[in-house]
Amino acid sequence: MTVTIMPVAGIPDIHPGDDLAAILVDAMRPAPPRTGDDVVITHKIVSRAEGAVRTIGDGPDDHRPVVEEQSAAVLRRRGSLVIAETHHGFICANAGVEGSNAEPGTVVLLPVDPDRSARRLRARIERAFGVEIAVIISDTFGRPWRRGLTDVAIGVAGMLPITDLRGSVDAYGRTLDVTVVNTADEIASAADLVLGKASRLPVAIVRGVEYVPGPGPMFEVVCPPDEDLFR
Amino acid sequence: MTVTIMPVAGIPDIHPGDDLAAILVDAMRPAPPRTGDDVVITHKIVSRAEGAVRTIGDGPDDHRPVVEEQSAAVLRRRGSLVIAETHHGFICANAGVEGSNAEPGTVVLLPVDPDRSARRLRARIERAFGVEIAVIISDTFGRPWRRGLTDVAIGVAGMLPITDLRGSVDAYGRTLDVTVVNTADEIASAADLVLGKASRLPVAIVRGVEYVPGPGPMFEVVCPPDEDLFR
Repeated sequence: MTVTIMPVAGIPDIHPGDDLAAILVDAMRPAPPRTGDDVVITHKIVSRAEGAVRTIGDGPDDHRPVVEEQSAAVLRRRGSLVIAETHHGFICANAGVEGSNAEPGTVVLLPVDPDRSARRLRARIERAFGVEIAVIISDTFGRPWRRGLTDVAIGVAGMLPITDLRGSVDAYGRTLDVTVVNTADEIASAADLVLGKASRLPVAIVRGVEYVPGPGPMFEVVCPPDEDLFR
Repeated sequence: MTVTIMPVAGIPDIHPGDDLAAILVDAMRPAPPRTGDDVVITHKIVSRAEGAVRTIGDGPDDHRPVVEEQSAAVLRRRGSLVIAETHHGFICANAGVEGSNAEPGTVVLLPVDPDRSARRLRARIERAFGVEIAVIISDTFGRPWRRGLTDVAIGVAGMLPITDLRGSVDAYGRTLDVTVVNTADEIASAADLVLGKASRLPVAIVRGVEYVPGPGPMFEVVCPPDEDLFR
């Protein structure tokens, strides 16, 4: 089994109100997705199309009220950095509010309901090409104890984000220690290898992953507070 | 740019004292790595070849003394789960001590110096095929706040694990919010998409990633305690 990751070229700047599904379908037409593919979409173009954008002043702290508003809970603060829980349950820097790759004077928020965004984009792409795919909406998160950021999934449709191996055995017949794999995060990280942060490549097609088809949703990935050792 | 991830078939069971580099070179001969590829090797076969294996009894807690010994510091305990810092500086479950994919009555530890293991394997593979590659040694780690495990890098040679984008600008000329990408972790996660936990596929070749050549080392990824908000 080989996995192939291909960026989708030719996606223009996205603005509030744009029909993102139509734009993605147009861009994918030269090399359409096939049944079983994962289409990974960085969340910023989804947020921008959905109008999840705020106008702010140009002071260094002018994003702060937006971060506070987007935070359900603040876990840590250091200088201008806030590690916050969003209303979706994700824990990330600045509650997902970002200034780069946004028009000057604006910040981009996370989509209100990334699973719903994924479902809608999936339905339109599937209809356009007559295929069955999964869609992942990704963002770039830090990780405690390790430097450097990686892309993770924040919305998913058409696949179970977690591959549950409970009950599987290893080559010696012993039960696996590793029982639940976050396949959605691994696919999001893989897609980032062809996207890059400064490029205008916000979408990749990942082909060949044996994911488990299903409805999603993303909240399966959010660790409930009573399971969580690091709040 | 397209990224391709190919598992390496035909790697037999690895035992302490095996010449792992020779075994990998043999297995890769039908489809050798090319200059610029990343070879991702799951740590268990490295640990086993290097003899980083312990015999334990068959009681449910018999791995515990080994976990204690492999821990430089314990961050959290819950039931039989320990989240510990290893002597390398990695923070993970059970200090990296694992029972699955080990012969019955044994546990597998992390390699003593995964960067050194990566350098040695890289040198042998490069010489065998006359290429310049990077080598990543991977393990499977949990992540606070999210369910499901993903593969990360624990040893690296031939590339900088972190891609530093500081000073880069986005399409609007604004400085990027995301300045340091953990490319090594993203490659390790991508490789896991073709490997799988219950299979006997411990090695993948990742082709097409624009990593930054360099010596490594992995400690660049370990967040120093004074930068870390979640100890």
